[in-house]
Amino acid sequence: MRIVHFEKGGEHGIAANDGSGWHGLTKRKSGFPGTLPELIANGADLLRAGRDLLLLPTIDLDKVRILPPVPKPPKILCVGLNYDDHLEESGLKKPVYPEIFARFATSLIAHRDPIRLPRESDTLDYEAELAVVIGRGGRRINRDRALDHVAGYSLFNDATIRDFQLRTPQWTMGKNFDGTGAFGPWLVTPDALPPGAHGLRIQGRLNGQVMQDSSIDKLIFSVPALIEMISVAISLEPGDVIITGTPGGVGAARKPPVFMKPGDVFEVEIEGMGVLSNTVQHESPDEASR
Amino acid sequence: MRIVHFEKGGEHGIAANDGSGWHGLTKRKSGFPGTLPELIANGADLLRAGRDLLLLPTIDLDKVRILPPVPKPPKILCVGLNYDDHLEESGLKKPVYPEIFARFATSLIAHRDPIRLPRESDTLDYEAELAVVIGRGGRRINRDRALDHVAGYSLFNDATIRDFQLRTPQWTMGKNFDGTGAFGPWLVTPDALPPGAHGLRIQGRLNGQVMQDSSIDKLIFSVPALIEMISVAISLEPGDVIITGTPGGVGAARKPPVFMKPGDVFEVEIEGMGVLSNTVQHESPDEASR
Repeated sequence: MRIVHFEKGGEHGIAANDGSGWHGLTKRKSGFPGTLPELIANGADLLRAGRDLLLLPTIDLDKVRILPPVPKPPKILCVGLNYDDHLEESGLKKPVYPEIFARFATSLIAHRDPIRLPRESDTLDYEAELAVVIGRGGRRINRDRALDHVAGYSLFNDATIRDFQLRTPQWTMGKNFDGTGAFGPWLVTPDALPPGAHGLRIQGRLNGQVMQDSSIDKLIFSVPALIEMISVAISLEPGDVIITGTPGGVGAARKPPVFMKPGDVFEVEIEGMGVLSNTVQHESPDEASR
Repeated sequence: MRIVHFEKGGEHGIAANDGSGWHGLTKRKSGFPGTLPELIANGADLLRAGRDLLLLPTIDLDKVRILPPVPKPPKILCVGLNYDDHLEESGLKKPVYPEIFARFATSLIAHRDPIRLPRESDTLDYEAELAVVIGRGGRRINRDRALDHVAGYSLFNDATIRDFQLRTPQWTMGKNFDGTGAFGPWLVTPDALPPGAHGLRIQGRLNGQVMQDSSIDKLIFSVPALIEMISVAISLEPGDVIITGTPGGVGAARKPPVFMKPGDVFEVEIEGMGVLSNTVQHESPDEASR
């Protein structure tokens, strides 16, 4: 089941799709179950909610504004260096422990939103990734039961301002420019995928050209391992997002380097999950100092 | 003016003190202006709200549970290596750009709450710091006007699980164990302090012994500089917290190293702002797997 969070005519909406098109409604309509982020925060059974939505009229997703599945996650935990080929191209050694850094919600954009190139840099890079959204929270979650805590999966472009990322050992600044973290288009519930999304093919394409092409089974730290290792320290909460890392092929590691320019389109595709697509734009003047 | 966020008998409360004791009330009482985090989120004039509170009956802070000034900040941005003597003891070079890492709200505790020593480590270290709470949000804020965006200042113990911090170059995990980030006791409005808290003495004391002793004027990146440099990339929002870094004297850099043990008391004091005090405790069994 796919479930999407959207906005239409100033109202939030929710719709589901199990292969026979999108069905759903907007807020204030009778039978509205809550928005997707509300359902996740309340620990609702998403599959059941989705099945109820399928009974409703169809929704044309081309006529709504798609929003990130969770626009304001309590935490966004990103994993660096989690594929061997990306490690190799970065010239770094295999980590014995996940490299975790944070994104903030101010950096998030949805499917079809522009990725913003700030005026301070021309080193905007792409990173195709699998995103995991936490449903049930917990601390010290055993990896054997970790997938019970997953509400669903989504796609992420962890777009990075490389020169800012590498100014200091902590990557936070280069990973958090407003309008750089593309998240969506929708949530895919776990029943629709292999456990932990294991084995699914992941691709990143720049203007249609395949730049990244790997499989989720190449993750050095798998989804259950990440949930276990992170939750040793940190209580996970409903709506938290874990961005699992990018495979090799990023722009900065190419010779010559390839960075994204205004007008470029980057797509993240994961087998069976859909395609996240965003066009690069310069920041507009009113964004620049809001 | 000092303004405190507290809980009494299951109700949130707010109280203010301008030097003649604490005056305030709990929610549902007539005239309740909102909690401190609500006032900050709504962009209220805190000094004016505080003046109104001073007209109310006195509150005995020993009979309430003090809460962090903002328990769930949209963002907590921590600055590493922002004092020369801490750089020196860490064996690191002066940064040309702030080292920013994130804390999550799940790590926050209040004044008088126990700092939790997790079972996975015995390298719990202290870090006395000045915290800045953002009032008015913005992007690309010029340093000349940066202090207009500050709601107030508070104290922070950026307590760190050193072995986890240093497992990977990204410090996130060692900085985010549940129950390690002490924040409070209250917010001090900017009118009560020099601009940017510049020149104030900051001390960290372990069981009464002075371990850290410096001045806010030793910050490599001052409060206005941090607001300017962070907001180049990241939209600041009301309630965001910037933790400005710790002076030299941390436990890990001592020979032999000094780490905190259950029963230890760590105090952060900043001149004119008060004392943040916390006792170290082992995690309780129910916290360990909540």
